[in-house]
Amino acid sequence: MKEKLSIIKIGGNIIENETELNKFLALFAAMDAPKILVHGGGKKANQILLKMGIEPQMAKGRRITDGASLEVAVMVFAGLVNKTLVAKLQALKCNAMGMSGADGNAITAQKRPIGDIDYGFAGDVISIKTNTISDIINIGLSPVFCALTHDDNGQLLNTNADTIASELAIGLSSQFETSLYYCFEMPGVLEDISDQKTLITTIDRTHYAQLVERGVISNGMLPKLHNCFEALKKGVKQVHIGNLALFEKENDNYTTLTL
Amino acid sequence: MKEKLSIIKIGGNIIENETELNKFLALFAAMDAPKILVHGGGKKANQILLKMGIEPQMAKGRRITDGASLEVAVMVFAGLVNKTLVAKLQALKCNAMGMSGADGNAITAQKRPIGDIDYGFAGDVISIKTNTISDIINIGLSPVFCALTHDDNGQLLNTNADTIASELAIGLSSQFETSLYYCFEMPGVLEDISDQKTLITTIDRTHYAQLVERGVISNGMLPKLHNCFEALKKGVKQVHIGNLALFEKENDNYTTLTL
Repeated sequence: MKEKLSIIKIGGNIIENETELNKFLALFAAMDAPKILVHGGGKKANQILLKMGIEPQMAKGRRITDGASLEVAVMVFAGLVNKTLVAKLQALKCNAMGMSGADGNAITAQKRPIGDIDYGFAGDVISIKTNTISDIINIGLSPVFCALTHDDNGQLLNTNADTIASELAIGLSSQFETSLYYCFEMPGVLEDISDQKTLITTIDRTHYAQLVERGVISNGMLPKLHNCFEALKKGVKQVHIGNLALFEKENDNYTTLTL
Repeated sequence: MKEKLSIIKIGGNIIENETELNKFLALFAAMDAPKILVHGGGKKANQILLKMGIEPQMAKGRRITDGASLEVAVMVFAGLVNKTLVAKLQALKCNAMGMSGADGNAITAQKRPIGDIDYGFAGDVISIKTNTISDIINIGLSPVFCALTHDDNGQLLNTNADTIASELAIGLSSQFETSLYYCFEMPGVLEDISDQKTLITTIDRTHYAQLVERGVISNGMLPKLHNCFEALKKGVKQVHIGNLALFEKENDNYTTLTL
């Protein structure tokens, strides 16, 4: 039987709010290992860009990463946010190991081809080095991945953190029974986005298709859920979406996706 | 017999000069593992500080690290410089693993007590987690350490990169036969700083004392050499000081220190 592995992606709003972040990190530190944390850090990057006189650029909800923005993304994601999380986890006696996709050659990607939009130094994941990552886990470390990959030719690339989390979960499901958690400020998938009491606690593929058809699943959630079902089809055991309730004992107020 | 381990510290001037840096990284990648790279990144940090409207502060050749400077140091050292080096090494097929002292709890430090000068978030090394670092080496990775440590209580600290290199070499000499290399723009220790032909190729303790007495060893070199001899006394096998010639075959134009 495969060992269980939890892969948790936290959203930018949790990172920005120190009280929420500290609550989350205490829950993460208390979880059974092996476990992996994945984070972005979008808002902080925008703040630093503005301080340096650079205007952040977005298209279709994704960052356009020119050379100067990539430098700032590397500084903020791999530097400030990653090391702050790692130092806080060490204080909670969780032996965290901050990583980008370049470290240990863990995640290689290719620069996104220029189509209608030139996303610049944005990377689409090609491969996950599952052996290196499981070696790191097996020596007792908990990887903390920022949203950066590399092309194995010296170029760092900016990659969506949700995608990194799902690709890690898919890749590592060859060696572990993987559970993927998307933790953000919402309690999960809601029937009515303005009413938190309308939380849907389980969604399977059939239910998902109905929700999409009925227009219940909103724009931002659509690619997220699509990626979750792809991950389940590719071997991930469980996907959960919600806020800190995901990690609280005797609290089932979140959304679980199943095939 | 203990396995050999090389610990190489590169200076800021090599990091700043892309041609020199690429030459160095090719030589580093070609070296036999196990090996560890240690780097600072001072000038780049000053550039970013200035871009963000913060004036860098120094006292007695050391950075004064207030809160804003620490943020920038973390962004530049652990982010921009560390990940650029790691991505370049991966392209050279060297399986690098970028780390701060917080990662894997590798290097703990204490905030320097306030004396005549308040150095702010500057950390003096307390302990090296040799088991974790050797585990990382043993799974085939080459650690690349930036000049940051942590206090094991959630606080990141700025620590001199020369000191990190010598403390790593001392700590790991319990498990490896360690050689310490300080690689910078000078060919080594010179009798006459204006004449590179006056390179001193070997210095032992007696010779060192004479050179200090005669005033040959200049201000900047004095603490560096003092630390090197301390490292040798504490179990480091060899210390070498020089430029890229340190890693070139059939080139002995550098300074070797012995007890």
